[in-house]
Amino acid sequence: MKEDFAAWMALIQRRVETALDHHLPPASIAPTRLHEAMRYAVLGGGKRMRPLLAHAAGEAVGADPRAVDAVACAVEFIHAYSLVHDDLPCMDDDVLRRGRPTCHVQYDEATALLAGDALQTLAFQVLAELPAELVPSCERRLTMLALLAQAAGSRGMAGGQAIDLAAVGLALTVEELEFMHIHKTGALIRAAVLLGAQCGAADEATLAALAHFANRAGLLFQVVDDILDAEGSTTTLGKTAGKDAAQEKPTYVSMLGLARAKELAASLREEAHAALAALAADTTRLAQLTDYIAERQF
Amino acid sequence: MKEDFAAWMALIQRRVETALDHHLPPASIAPTRLHEAMRYAVLGGGKRMRPLLAHAAGEAVGADPRAVDAVACAVEFIHAYSLVHDDLPCMDDDVLRRGRPTCHVQYDEATALLAGDALQTLAFQVLAELPAELVPSCERRLTMLALLAQAAGSRGMAGGQAIDLAAVGLALTVEELEFMHIHKTGALIRAAVLLGAQCGAADEATLAALAHFANRAGLLFQVVDDILDAEGSTTTLGKTAGKDAAQEKPTYVSMLGLARAKELAASLREEAHAALAALAADTTRLAQLTDYIAERQF
Repeated sequence: MKEDFAAWMALIQRRVETALDHHLPPASIAPTRLHEAMRYAVLGGGKRMRPLLAHAAGEAVGADPRAVDAVACAVEFIHAYSLVHDDLPCMDDDVLRRGRPTCHVQYDEATALLAGDALQTLAFQVLAELPAELVPSCERRLTMLALLAQAAGSRGMAGGQAIDLAAVGLALTVEELEFMHIHKTGALIRAAVLLGAQCGAADEATLAALAHFANRAGLLFQVVDDILDAEGSTTTLGKTAGKDAAQEKPTYVSMLGLARAKELAASLREEAHAALAALAADTTRLAQLTDYIAERQF
Repeated sequence: MKEDFAAWMALIQRRVETALDHHLPPASIAPTRLHEAMRYAVLGGGKRMRPLLAHAAGEAVGADPRAVDAVACAVEFIHAYSLVHDDLPCMDDDVLRRGRPTCHVQYDEATALLAGDALQTLAFQVLAELPAELVPSCERRLTMLALLAQAAGSRGMAGGQAIDLAAVGLALTVEELEFMHIHKTGALIRAAVLLGAQCGAADEATLAALAHFANRAGLLFQVVDDILDAEGSTTTLGKTAGKDAAQEKPTYVSMLGLARAKELAASLREEAHAALAALAADTTRLAQLTDYIAERQF
């Protein structure tokens, strides 16, 4: 079963890389430096967790994988833009990402700023230009666009980053930390699952169950991230380790301690599986991804 | 006629301010500082040239003004986000905009970055959530979303800003300068006109004629901007005057001289009027706006 999952993951990652490459403007057309920076920020690295979740959700409801490819690209472009802007000197001021210099180090701050901006635009463009025959209805495509915008905006991911900024050096409660993460990383993970499902024939009950699953899986992802940041090295992570603690950012580990953070991860993993078990659909891939998120070492 | 136009402009500006306020998240909900910064960047100033163009185009084709309000907000949010990011220290590093401190001066760089990001998202959200009954068809709404994305992205406005960055200190040709402006400011002005028209019953020929008009009007806007930047004072402009020259940015005035730049403005104004004359629709407002753009002193 593990081998089968690894093969599936490799297959999806390959098709997503192809789709990302296809949707990104070629570096040969003007403005070339901007297009190079956009490609640098997206291609050649990343676990593609959100695209994997979109495809796993899409498979559960019989979606056309070509539609899910587009949706996965849209979500990944939003994710990539947020990393580029998050790494800028006025934000986290980070120099290393996915084992390589961050976008503004490789290019320059202004180019990185514009590359992030243009990647966000591209996310919405890909969804708006999704071929009509791949998705159940025109209305569904508008729902998907609205969903992505809600997830990315000031009451979603960008809002979570603002809360994160405001939290530096503060003593948050665990509830406040959870509120931050539900926005900062959770909203987009939830969007990945729901957009994948929207490509198929998911009914309202299925979408609600998947949303509940995605909330748990998203938080699990973050708790594991905090554990890895505390335990890992810069080499295995491909980004600067121990950074959150150094910047006095509250994390699950700093607030709960390592042992209780691991207990929390275990119970979130169980809750995610329980949410999937409530579904009639074949959620094998989503379950396997949940275990992968829980057990990952990087 | 002039009085009638002034009254129309005031009316549209009022209704657009109301719509902008309505679509912006209230500053009372979390994250409050981010929402404050978004509101600061959008409200309380600005000529609302793009919303005026959208409404003028919408009126020419019998569009529902409530639909045009939404479209105008979407375009204005993109415009506002671009100004916030453009003013950042890593870009133009400007401290004054519309007679007030720029967003990053009033708040901080990270908040301004996120406010710009979230304003871009909001633009697409407003279009995606446009009430179905206000627009001819669902497909039309997707066309509008794709149009806005194309205008804002790396082959539109963001691309124009990248070209602008690369042009500092370089000896451009007038053709290269025009190429830059067609992207940097022209694309969004064109989108404002076309999105306004898409809200109504515009056929392909009308849209093509309006696109041609918008190209000329957009360039006219930029040439007049350069003339005002060279001739004006910081007080009347509400932003730092003479800045382009100080930053060694090529402008129509620096390349052609003031007299020939004014000749160019006069011929663009004529071409814009000629494009409107080719239309069967009532283009009074678009014609008046063209004259307003040509004659404006701020």
